[in-house]
Amino acid sequence: MLFFGGDYNPEQWPEEVWEQDVALMRRAGVTIVSLGVFAWSHLEPEEGRFEFGWLDRIMDRLHEGGIRVALATPTASPPPWFTLAHPEGLPVTADGVRLSHGSRDTYCVSAPAYRAAARRIAAALAGRYAGHPALALWHVHNEYGTDCRCDLTAAAFRVWLRDKHGGLDALNDAWTTAFWSQRYSDWAQILPPRATRYLPNPAHVLDFRRFLSDELLGAFVEQRDLLRAATPDIPVTTNFVQGGWVSVDHARWAAELDVVAVDHYPATTDGAEAETAFGADLARGWAAGQGGSWLLMETAPNLIYTPGRMHAKEPGRLTRHSLSYLARGSRGAMYFQWRQPRGGAELFHSALVPHAGPDSPVFREAVGLGRTLKALDGQVAGPLTAQVAIGWDAPSWWALQGGGLPAADIDYPAAVQQTHRALYHAGIATDFVFPGLDGLGERLRAYRMVVLPHLYLVSDEAAAALREFVASGGHLVAGHLSGIADPAGRIRLGGYPGAFRDFLGVRVVEWRPLAPGTTIALDNGDRGVRWSERVETAGAETVVRYAADVLAGAPAITRNRYGDGAAWYVSPGLDDDALRRLLDQVAAEAGVLPVLPGLPPRLDAVRRGDLVFLFNHGDAPAPVPLPGPGTDAVTGRPAPGSVTVPAGGTTVVALQPPDRRPAAAGPHL
Amino acid sequence: MLFFGGDYNPEQWPEEVWEQDVALMRRAGVTIVSLGVFAWSHLEPEEGRFEFGWLDRIMDRLHEGGIRVALATPTASPPPWFTLAHPEGLPVTADGVRLSHGSRDTYCVSAPAYRAAARRIAAALAGRYAGHPALALWHVHNEYGTDCRCDLTAAAFRVWLRDKHGGLDALNDAWTTAFWSQRYSDWAQILPPRATRYLPNPAHVLDFRRFLSDELLGAFVEQRDLLRAATPDIPVTTNFVQGGWVSVDHARWAAELDVVAVDHYPATTDGAEAETAFGADLARGWAAGQGGSWLLMETAPNLIYTPGRMHAKEPGRLTRHSLSYLARGSRGAMYFQWRQPRGGAELFHSALVPHAGPDSPVFREAVGLGRTLKALDGQVAGPLTAQVAIGWDAPSWWALQGGGLPAADIDYPAAVQQTHRALYHAGIATDFVFPGLDGLGERLRAYRMVVLPHLYLVSDEAAAALREFVASGGHLVAGHLSGIADPAGRIRLGGYPGAFRDFLGVRVVEWRPLAPGTTIALDNGDRGVRWSERVETAGAETVVRYAADVLAGAPAITRNRYGDGAAWYVSPGLDDDALRRLLDQVAAEAGVLPVLPGLPPRLDAVRRGDLVFLFNHGDAPAPVPLPGPGTDAVTGRPAPGSVTVPAGGTTVVALQPPDRRPAAAGPHL
Amino acid sequence: MLFFGGDYNPEQWPEEVWEQDVALMRRAGVTIVSLGVFAWSHLEPEEGRFEFGWLDRIMDRLHEGGIRVALATPTASPPPWFTLAHPEGLPVTADGVRLSHGSRDTYCVSAPAYRAAARRIAAALAGRYAGHPALALWHVHNEYGTDCRCDLTAAAFRVWLRDKHGGLDALNDAWTTAFWSQRYSDWAQILPPRATRYLPNPAHVLDFRRFLSDELLGAFVEQRDLLRAATPDIPVTTNFVQGGWVSVDHARWAAELDVVAVDHYPATTDGAEAETAFGADLARGWAAGQGGSWLLMETAPNLIYTPGRMHAKEPGRLTRHSLSYLARGSRGAMYFQWRQPRGGAELFHSALVPHAGPDSPVFREAVGLGRTLKALDGQVAGPLTAQVAIGWDAPSWWALQGGGLPAADIDYPAAVQQTHRALYHAGIATDFVFPGLDGLGERLRAYRMVVLPHLYLVSDEAAAALREFVASGGHLVAGHLSGIADPAGRIRLGGYPGAFRDFLGVRVVEWRPLAPGTTIALDNGDRGVRWSERVETAGAETVVRYAADVLAGAPAITRNRYGDGAAWYVSPGLDDDALRRLLDQVAAEAGVLPVLPGLPPRLDAVRRGDLVFLFNHGDAPAPVPLPGPGTDAVTGRPAPGSVTVPAGGTTVVALQPPDRRPAAAGPHL
Repeated sequence: MLFFGGDYNPEQWPEEVWEQDVALMRRAGVTIVSLGVFAWSHLEPEEGRFEFGWLDRIMDRLHEGGIRVALATPTASPPPWFTLAHPEGLPVTADGVRLSHGSRDTYCVSAPAYRAAARRIAAALAGRYAGHPALALWHVHNEYGTDCRCDLTAAAFRVWLRDKHGGLDALNDAWTTAFWSQRYSDWAQILPPRATRYLPNPAHVLDFRRFLSDELLGAFVEQRDLLRAATPDIPVTTNFVQGGWVSVDHARWAAELDVVAVDHYPATTDGAEAETAFGADLARGWAAGQGGSWLLMETAPNLIYTPGRMHAKEPGRLTRHSLSYLARGSRGAMYFQWRQPRGGAELFHSALVPHAGPDSPVFREAVGLGRTLKALDGQVAGPLTAQVAIGWDAPSWWALQGGGLPAADIDYPAAVQQTHRALYHAGIATDFVFPGLDGLGERLRAYRMVVLPHLYLVSDEAAAALREFVASGGHLVAGHLSGIADPAGRIRLGGYPGAFRDFLGVRVVEWRPLAPGTTIALDNGDRGVRWSERVETAGAETVVRYAADVLAGAPAITRNRYGDGAAWYVSPGLDDDALRRLLDQVAAEAGVLPVLPGLPPRLDAVRRGDLVFLFNHGDAPAPVPLPGPGTDAVTGRPAPGSVTVPAGGTTVVALQPPDRRPAAAGPHL
Repeated sequence: MLFFGGDYNPEQWPEEVWEQDVALMRRAGVTIVSLGVFAWSHLEPEEGRFEFGWLDRIMDRLHEGGIRVALATPTASPPPWFTLAHPEGLPVTADGVRLSHGSRDTYCVSAPAYRAAARRIAAALAGRYAGHPALALWHVHNEYGTDCRCDLTAAAFRVWLRDKHGGLDALNDAWTTAFWSQRYSDWAQILPPRATRYLPNPAHVLDFRRFLSDELLGAFVEQRDLLRAATPDIPVTTNFVQGGWVSVDHARWAAELDVVAVDHYPATTDGAEAETAFGADLARGWAAGQGGSWLLMETAPNLIYTPGRMHAKEPGRLTRHSLSYLARGSRGAMYFQWRQPRGGAELFHSALVPHAGPDSPVFREAVGLGRTLKALDGQVAGPLTAQVAIGWDAPSWWALQGGGLPAADIDYPAAVQQTHRALYHAGIATDFVFPGLDGLGERLRAYRMVVLPHLYLVSDEAAAALREFVASGGHLVAGHLSGIADPAGRIRLGGYPGAFRDFLGVRVVEWRPLAPGTTIALDNGDRGVRWSERVETAGAETVVRYAADVLAGAPAITRNRYGDGAAWYVSPGLDDDALRRLLDQVAAEAGVLPVLPGLPPRLDAVRRGDLVFLFNHGDAPAPVPLPGPGTDAVTGRPAPGSVTVPAGGTTVVALQPPDRRPAAAGPHL
Repeated sequence: MLFFGGDYNPEQWPEEVWEQDVALMRRAGVTIVSLGVFAWSHLEPEEGRFEFGWLDRIMDRLHEGGIRVALATPTASPPPWFTLAHPEGLPVTADGVRLSHGSRDTYCVSAPAYRAAARRIAAALAGRYAGHPALALWHVHNEYGTDCRCDLTAAAFRVWLRDKHGGLDALNDAWTTAFWSQRYSDWAQILPPRATRYLPNPAHVLDFRRFLSDELLGAFVEQRDLLRAATPDIPVTTNFVQGGWVSVDHARWAAELDVVAVDHYPATTDGAEAETAFGADLARGWAAGQGGSWLLMETAPNLIYTPGRMHAKEPGRLTRHSLSYLARGSRGAMYFQWRQPRGGAELFHSALVPHAGPDSPVFREAVGLGRTLKALDGQVAGPLTAQVAIGWDAPSWWALQGGGLPAADIDYPAAVQQTHRALYHAGIATDFVFPGLDGLGERLRAYRMVVLPHLYLVSDEAAAALREFVASGGHLVAGHLSGIADPAGRIRLGGYPGAFRDFLGVRVVEWRPLAPGTTIALDNGDRGVRWSERVETAGAETVVRYAADVLAGAPAITRNRYGDGAAWYVSPGLDDDALRRLLDQVAAEAGVLPVLPGLPPRLDAVRRGDLVFLFNHGDAPAPVPLPGPGTDAVTGRPAPGSVTVPAGGTTVVALQPPDRRPAAAGPHL
């Protein structure tokens, strides 16, 4: 079954609307809805008193309509009664402000009262709906990512630190507490990062974010285990969200989920196809342990958030991007949300059924998309294979958000997305690897080429695996701000990038960040942006040199033959075009091929086994030569040597004559 | 008597200065001063101990000088002793910070201790000065507009909510608390909006602002009643101030005042005449219950605030703009302030007597203005009549300040001011109506044309009155973001603008806010700014279409013949010129005429009965043809068929031979 | 001995690194290091338990290496145990947030617990190291400048206020508490400035900053006296830091120090030579009581902070600017820091030994600089004499940081720096005088010309001294915003600049700040920036007039012959070129000469007795004619009538044949 549906909040509507909802879902081909995500105050209106009648009725009604349910535990938003009964369960900011209800996510995950309340409602739901025929998936919580600085959090943080560091001496060493007289002589002195006079200790902040990730994971696992015990055959997930404020290391969490579920809201108005592909490829990376199969749990039917503005999508984008997620590994496409609410904080967040009702462009497009998904059901099975991987590391992101860095505008996700975008525009399928996880060496064997943007923190083990990757014939590209520090954030001394100096064959003796709005000439005609450095080669050959200012003539981009492979170092920041040309060159040397050669601009191809997805993000129809004759997987029409993909459209070609392909891999639903 | 004077703070000066003050006031023709606005700590230096001697002396001295007094209750700024004696009477921010004295306005209006202290000082003043011959007006408090989030406020908020909603079910429904699990099961769970994790519930915030307006009004009424009891013949007012932070619905308050008094500080450096006219016309709207007669209580003699800067006015502006307020209904012109202070937080706020002393341009201009006002005294009597009204609604403003809107830069007052400015530049006299008040239908009967910018919230009753206005032959123009929600902020479903769809004959199925800096072409050559939409007509004719992007060819501006009238819908934002052309066209169709035809640019005419005010805001003398022969109302010289208004000057023409006109309408002073 | 070295933090490193450190220091010619600045948690890991062993060992090792020690008291950063033991000793923000450890500077200087702890550790250090042969200087604390708004601070503030004002009536008068009902009737009502509703009382804020300066000074003096008692022959200093947040009046503090020590971090990427000269000249002003001899205690070896970015210096700047400080009175050049840390909040702050190690450009340049300094040792002795002084006044700066000023972007240090820069580019040696200190008249006798940018606050005594300066033949230039208020911030009435009207011969009746991005034409072809005014002459002659807008024809720049001198008033802001031309003209009239005539651009000359420092900040070698034959003071080579200073280089010429010059003046080390 392909997942098609979204968050459904019947508790916001009178029951007469429910009937219309089910009828409209059937019209659109919806197969599943997320239910109850924010329903705690409706399920447990007073502490310990449950009202399940309404949920029983809608579960039954959905089941009668042939629609399955991802049933949520509503623990992301405790009801107002929780505030009054358990004030110590509310979160406290770094300034000491105890937050109050009135929004969502107002709880402290380390507060026993919160954890107990969360277990109680989860257990009650598990008990009541364990055998319900509509139940297809447990959707625990929503977008884990809160933080708190209260005394209960402090206590939990200390336990976590003891477990990690063993003793205070080790902690003092790891955190370099000798700086600014911060040496701890008693565990009780350790607090969460709180309002202080000036710059905080970055290692303290970094460990606190790691702690939060683990603490939130503990809360998830607690619910997961309880649900698994009640329904061993129903998979359990939680929906990942990303953002600079989110202290969750999704790569570590993924192993604890039965299905990796992802919320993804591209923020680009034009050409968001690259951002969509990035989100999908990263999710597939997280889901490597589940064969690369994941689930798009939320995206916006008709909304692009940019700072201060909600843009509407152009016609066709909903369909095309939904299929792009599907092609890149998602088990379907789910949306926030089914029906646009009349009130509440997000009343203008888009929906499949907008304020205007079903007589609207977005609902009509959804109906068409439902038909396409139904046609594709059962066909999307083959693996997506890539020869290139990008390194992603949440702790490096966190470390680069600090305040004492050489440039305040270092943007980790932007750097990674730019790398991915360059490969995307080169038509090269790309995976993600996670240098912070065990087993990196094994994982790297699948690839010919690895790119490391801003891999700031790196362990000795990961550095060794990367070294071995190159020695064994791999092609590695490291950008500036990679290999700088150990996982505690301590600089690897002797010249940057300390961890990689040997196999890169370079030594950086000085960083020279560029002033905003300035660039630096390179001798190949490109210009460095954002960053420059004084690089000394130590074995590497210089491919491109700086051509101006005090760096004139100094190495900018180098290549080091190391063992059977090659390791590139890219000192300056590059613009999109320059970066794409560079990665094209490395890919060519590495023998990496695009998915399909010679595609027109804005034509994006994904291949899964014998199925080829062709996305035309441009404004004109685009003829695409195929690697062989096939069949249009949606219409069933023959697709001989080539197809023409309509402007803004998607064509899916099955390269073999259509037959009943096996169902997609992944956990049973 | 025309009011001419300003805030006077003798308590800041030694008594030898008082004598000079009264002499200078007489030289300038000052008729009235506001006394004691911030004198609490001088009147009651310790709790319960009063010092009235100094006030007695200055009241007497002013009376001897023939100057009347608007005596203030000083309750806007409790003295420092209040902080120590009644800490619970200090305001608390949403973050839980209890503010301290050191500025002004540090009190919680819901705190019994504050209310008791305010009543005590007001009663003491009423008792002492009830019979004083200088007393002409009670000036309660100053610029009501504070807020507080403390527990006392919470308790008062709950009482207000019970009274408004009746039961919790109704409140839960009105606030859509089903969103994000916010359903209340006990009144005690309801708090003022406080620091919370993420977006607040907009209906919660909106009701809290309404509560604050009513709570502050209660404090005013308490003092008013006490003063009325002491001096039944002395009118009572309070000075209105506007700003995004002010939770006062002035339209509702106006009925509780004997005189509507307004503080107005235009913030435009060039061409502030439109902003001045806007402030005056809006004040006249509030004062409809008092025959349109109101009082400019504060404006700056020589200051224009722009963000981060105090600009000085050019010579003549003080006079011209003061007369503009007068022409548009003010009973005179009062200023903040008489004498510029030597110290304090606002030591550079301008004054009639600046730091430089009376030998200064501003004081010399004030002396001339005083002479002009004296000449006009008794002549400014006739009504100002308008055929056009603009809708103004404070709750719509508040609702559009929220955080979950499609665009963060929606600016309600800017939109209303732009509409007013377009009519101003078209030379059309304009009133304001308040769709949130009862009796709208009756009120609309006076007009041929109504314009509704961003009338976001609208009740069923108001929608019906507007519908009837059109059906009966009126011409209505609704802009985007009008008619969207009910008064609780719940969307009116089925397509925007839900409340007006039928008589506008359109249905908007999708909003497409424009990115900052971008515009969208229209097929009449204009360009849409800030906003676009997908509009479907349902009866209306399309007057202008979008001409680009995904909206190319779709309706942008429509007109619907409905009953005997016409209803226009304006989907895009327009720039000033385009909006003026559009409103010119509607006015022409509606038979609305300018005040005087064919005026030169920057010549602004206001007609009150037989009196015509001609303001030349430009740099060159401007000849103006008159509707008939008259007399210069200031100089008494004949004004045959036309007059030439000097650059930067004002000419007032009485179209009939001068006779003793009746005194201006309004409460007796 | 010339000081050459920097902050050294051996506690951050294993002891095996110490050996390498001393060897590298010797290689670089380091003569002194600051030790223990942030070592409290290593010296006293638990309250009352000291660990001096490590410090003994490094002190001994340094002594063996011939390196002296500026031993710090570590009181700028209490250890974490302090937080738990003495929560009332932590600082509280204006919002009531009690800060926590985790950074540095988290203490309340008014808290007895903090003061006791600081005395205890200082006494322990004094006791242990009083006789240590390496000890050369006591370095108390670090960069005093914290603030706190707690109740302990409130109590101390009240004591200070009683002492200053005597009685409440005087305080009420000085603070103009009649404004906004702020009159105090009991000392207990006076609090530090805390979160309040709106603008604070500027006099309240100003006195609080003065109090903080004195309170911090009290903490310094307490330690100083204790150290002096233990080691009467070792000078005591503390390192001054400047910044908008720093409430320290360094001019007043200087008298309490044995050596004025300064931290200076120029923030200009290009052409920072003027900023370097400014910092040095200002420090020399502070050190007037010590013969103008001061010490650069910290600057960055290879770092220029601009907002959000750390820039690296170009090769040679470290050397050139270090010598510029030396030429302008510093006893050497010390850096933050010796060795770049592996972790901590400032791990990217630059160092003489960077992360890359000694094999790096910065260390190589340091080695060369060490050699140059050694060659100059003993030669830098003669006084630097200047004929021009600029007025600097910390309280005026503080007063101009308030919120109720006519322009929010008034920038006191920028105005002073611009004045200094104009004189610097004119090649004129410049001193600083401090009109807030006693003895101004005496001090002014040394100068022919005085410039007063934004001397907003001025006492009657200072005004009299300035008047007498002019009457006696001096040339004075006052810019706008000078002479406006008395030291309490009360406006001097009757027309600006009240304090100077008589000898300037002008009267300003209106300020007209310019809108950002606009300028106003002057009749000499220049343009006024930021500011304009309506000026009336009263005796002065008009030199330049405004040439546009409402000010067209009005005086802009005036000169008043007064007694034997001349007093100029400069009403508009000027750009750098216009200001330089104006000051050139005044200097010429005053008979002020440049250090050397006819220097090429970016060639900067400083003369100390017979020693001439020539700094070439440009990109090309520059020939410089000398006033006579001399000798290169570094190489010993003859320097006949002229020398060519290499691009980016420094040449020091001894105009007499080299002999053993006496050691530099100042306290014995």
